[in-house]
Amino acid sequence: MTPEEMMQVAIEAAETSKTPYGAVIAKGNQIVEVAGNTVLTEHDPTGHAEVNVIRKLATKLGDRSLEGYTLYTTYEPCPMCASACVWASISEIIYGASIDDFEDYNPNLIDLRCKDVIQRSPISIHLKGGVLLEQCKHLHDVYPIE
Amino acid sequence: MTPEEMMQVAIEAAETSKTPYGAVIAKGNQIVEVAGNTVLTEHDPTGHAEVNVIRKLATKLGDRSLEGYTLYTTYEPCPMCASACVWASISEIIYGASIDDFEDYNPNLIDLRCKDVIQRSPISIHLKGGVLLEQCKHLHDVYPIE
Repeated sequence: MTPEEMMQVAIEAAETSKTPYGAVIAKGNQIVEVAGNTVLTEHDPTGHAEVNVIRKLATKLGDRSLEGYTLYTTYEPCPMCASACVWASISEIIYGASIDDFEDYNPNLIDLRCKDVIQRSPISIHLKGGVLLEQCKHLHDVYPIE
Repeated sequence: MTPEEMMQVAIEAAETSKTPYGAVIAKGNQIVEVAGNTVLTEHDPTGHAEVNVIRKLATKLGDRSLEGYTLYTTYEPCPMCASACVWASISEIIYGASIDDFEDYNPNLIDLRCKDVIQRSPISIHLKGGVLLEQCKHLHDVYPIE
């Protein structure tokens, strides 16, 4: 699968969760786990798609280290999710829309970018945004932002 | 219960989890939830005590907002946990030992303090450290740091 095809699966996970947020984890060109956002459905403030997909895969594998894996997410990870990627030793984060891709800044965000967290972390994580950007931005028109 | 008595319960949660990390959530002077760190036991890189106690309480209450609640934790929250407190609308964070209370800086940390995250967040969270400081620091001598 191409990065765009991986992101398409993350978009479908967002749609399934009826939020703008979906994530997948891949090893090489194979998707190994998928999750959407469960903040509202499970009343879990930590239930962001990235945290959910990391928890699901690591506990399934019985290994807290996901070194060598790539996380795809429809939206730039917040500081909670960026930190979760660090603690999971994720090797690469690929996201769709970034905070700065929206003209109107959302005042309900924590004003730290994913790269700010990664740069201050003890590991090196490759970071890339803008994959299927317009489709990921469009999710915010369809589903409410939390 | 006094703040010191609340922290003592957090310390006991850390000891039960055989890690330096325990947390409780209180409403007024009553403890309503307790959790330890489950990173190693559940192979969950997101299983820090603060994330665990927030998840447990919010899902039990069926309310993702914990506004009006105070979180006590044996160690200054990392950026993942500080952000989780923001997303949960926790009103107050009281911790024991801080990153800067240790002479030898741990190179495996993300170099962002709890206050750095809170200051950049959209809500106001009261933050206080140093409660039962020596007892909380001592946990790091007894149990391995992850």
